[in-house]
Amino acid sequence: MADFDVIVLGGGPGGYLAAERLGRAGKSVALIEQASLGGTCLNVGCIPTKALLNCAKLLSHAQDSAQFGIQVSQVGYDWGAMQAWKAKTVKTLVAGVTQLMRRHRVQVVTGHGRMVAPGVVEVDSVTYSARDVIIATGSAPVRPPIPGAANNPLVVDSTALLNITEVPERLTIVGGGVIGIEFASLFSRLGTTVTIVEMLDEILAFAEPEVASRLRASLKGVTVKLGARVTAIEEATVVIEMGGTIERVEADLVLMAIGRRPLVDGWGADEIDLAYTSAGVTVDDQMRTNLAGVWAVGDVTGRSLLAHGAYRMGEVAASAILDGGSASRGPVMRWDTIPWALYGAPEAAGVGLTQAEGEARGLAVQTVTVPLAVSGRFVAEEGLSRAGVVKVVADRDSRLILGVQLLGPYAPEMIWGAAAVLEMELTIDEVRQLVFPHPTISEGIREACWAFPDQERV
Amino acid sequence: MADFDVIVLGGGPGGYLAAERLGRAGKSVALIEQASLGGTCLNVGCIPTKALLNCAKLLSHAQDSAQFGIQVSQVGYDWGAMQAWKAKTVKTLVAGVTQLMRRHRVQVVTGHGRMVAPGVVEVDSVTYSARDVIIATGSAPVRPPIPGAANNPLVVDSTALLNITEVPERLTIVGGGVIGIEFASLFSRLGTTVTIVEMLDEILAFAEPEVASRLRASLKGVTVKLGARVTAIEEATVVIEMGGTIERVEADLVLMAIGRRPLVDGWGADEIDLAYTSAGVTVDDQMRTNLAGVWAVGDVTGRSLLAHGAYRMGEVAASAILDGGSASRGPVMRWDTIPWALYGAPEAAGVGLTQAEGEARGLAVQTVTVPLAVSGRFVAEEGLSRAGVVKVVADRDSRLILGVQLLGPYAPEMIWGAAAVLEMELTIDEVRQLVFPHPTISEGIREACWAFPDQERV
Repeated sequence: MADFDVIVLGGGPGGYLAAERLGRAGKSVALIEQASLGGTCLNVGCIPTKALLNCAKLLSHAQDSAQFGIQVSQVGYDWGAMQAWKAKTVKTLVAGVTQLMRRHRVQVVTGHGRMVAPGVVEVDSVTYSARDVIIATGSAPVRPPIPGAANNPLVVDSTALLNITEVPERLTIVGGGVIGIEFASLFSRLGTTVTIVEMLDEILAFAEPEVASRLRASLKGVTVKLGARVTAIEEATVVIEMGGTIERVEADLVLMAIGRRPLVDGWGADEIDLAYTSAGVTVDDQMRTNLAGVWAVGDVTGRSLLAHGAYRMGEVAASAILDGGSASRGPVMRWDTIPWALYGAPEAAGVGLTQAEGEARGLAVQTVTVPLAVSGRFVAEEGLSRAGVVKVVADRDSRLILGVQLLGPYAPEMIWGAAAVLEMELTIDEVRQLVFPHPTISEGIREACWAFPDQERV
Repeated sequence: MADFDVIVLGGGPGGYLAAERLGRAGKSVALIEQASLGGTCLNVGCIPTKALLNCAKLLSHAQDSAQFGIQVSQVGYDWGAMQAWKAKTVKTLVAGVTQLMRRHRVQVVTGHGRMVAPGVVEVDSVTYSARDVIIATGSAPVRPPIPGAANNPLVVDSTALLNITEVPERLTIVGGGVIGIEFASLFSRLGTTVTIVEMLDEILAFAEPEVASRLRASLKGVTVKLGARVTAIEEATVVIEMGGTIERVEADLVLMAIGRRPLVDGWGADEIDLAYTSAGVTVDDQMRTNLAGVWAVGDVTGRSLLAHGAYRMGEVAASAILDGGSASRGPVMRWDTIPWALYGAPEAAGVGLTQAEGEARGLAVQTVTVPLAVSGRFVAEEGLSRAGVVKVVADRDSRLILGVQLLGPYAPEMIWGAAAVLEMELTIDEVRQLVFPHPTISEGIREACWAFPDQERV
């Protein structure tokens, strides 16, 4: 008989949530984690950055509120105290996950797990067996083969940057994705001169151009170099090629933030003949791999590299296991309704298809972009000079809402409603009928729906 | 032939939105307003309070962020500058409404309108006629017959308090509703010693006790006297009777905030035999009054005294008029899905039935209350010592969600999703399947749904 019903390999969001759901349902579960529970997100990703970003937001509020009648002399920050707040946050939440595992009788095994056969995992030469195994090994920062980047103490990844002891005067960030933008927002608010170097023509490749361009223009104290290819790094100087000319961007520290790669190596994928590519472990919409009883969730699948994507994958896999592994029942992943959120200055969020994605699928899309200044609360808190926008993408014929993107305050907190709207497959006309509280910035979504042309009255 | 298709009497949220929707659809519309467009909400209600509350929030951020590593010396505020920001906000938004009316070819008539017959309105001795008339005359603060309250310059209503030139050292607020709590939050943050006097056993009668009590306990620098009946006011001293003993609450200014009453007088309701009570003009769920061609929307109906309730009533009336007045088609008001929001320190919001309301309707309700500390973002931004809670009310048998209430940051911006969930009639189990972005405080709603007991797997 197997030692456990289920072994989960990796204690990040996808892994620990799957373990929680299975334990809650009465399964015996082992959760194997070599480091701290909570994975990248909790220990060196979403949570510590949000703790620091909030500190930086409060600093900005103290510095920049003269127009709101707030008078302050001598504003400063104590990076050590910010770090202490961050550490306390992480410690609190890791303890919370530990407690959660205990409550649901999940046995946490500390060590490096390695699959030796489907259903068999070795942890530091101890072997554990289970009917089902869920792979949740996560991802790691991509390290591109740029001359001068490797073994350069002035070139760091996001994990290292979170733990620096001194705030750099100048920081160059290679990569204009979420991680790049959030760190640019954090350090520029702390007074660092920040340069973002992005290879593509715009930051945030997955965002609507109306959102990305306005966000870029709103980043204070940040220089963004688009269409810039990094050819070499010398100490903290990044050499870039832009439109045929070579430029040297000098700084005191360089953050490499060009993306993360699924961690498909180091835990036995090849040994058990698990199907994977460089894009991640191959899974179906219920998180099955090619091997019976072996499931994969979270970043390692490459399907979504977001913590809540991992949560959902963990839940879907757990649900399928509880249903006896049957593919004919239980929830499936709906990849298009996983929202994204960006906690920069300003904030942004989105869910569903962009206009370009809709068009690429051959849909007749119709879009509306509305400034958030249609919202009374936005005007009351931000005025007319700050950036805020909402874009809604719909199907021209069915009027189904396909996507919503937001740039502006509280965007990450209001996007869940849009995810619900997409899940429920509501039309422009149905969202028009919803009652949004006034005055909120969320009303911008309603206004955008009313800005579409009317359907003919019949 | 009538002068207009529709006359709207009153330029607040319900009135101007109905005018906009009708104008947009090609109707000829007159909007009659004696003061400034935008009504109470925009001129002396939601908007100016939110502008000032945001200033006060920024002040608190500057003052209280030492634990987040923010160092500030000498923080103060300039009430005049705050007032200027408020005035600029209101001016901007009133101009926006004016522009909106112009865009939809709504003729704005300035003056005091009075109905002389169904379809006939007199404005300063000029008579206008229309096929349909929408009454949107709003509400006014209740002035109770408390000895010493009338003609006392130290006893003010919210409109007057918004425009004071000096911040009082001590403020007594009679009434612990939304207006009372928001002004308590505003002035306590400005350093005023605030006392709230509430006749009932708890503030915020419409809120869940779990939300109201925690909110009350979180109000810094505010003393709340519950079960306190005001017997007299002498200058700015409020005499109260609490459990048989008499107490004198001294202050420099007194705000009367015990509620608002529908404005059913002064515009001809009696002359045209319109049916109304002290609770407001009697309407059906499509905003029809007892008179053909006469509709009523917003505060004057007494059905919801919230701006977005008025918006929705205006839309529903407009839709019914566009449908030729037929009662058998078009949207109807769904009173239970109008959310409320409170922009105090802390914020709160809710939608749907409370547990008590559900029980009073004879429903078998099941509830869950979860601390917002389940949210990583909450912990990262607030820590464990601040109040935050989410309560979900569901039907035990069908598992339909009946109500959601939130206490914590961003609550007003996330509640629209809960309103959508109620409109769509989702169950606990369906909301569990939605993907909320991580880390957000909105995830508390999802966690609450998972905190309900599971349905048996079948």
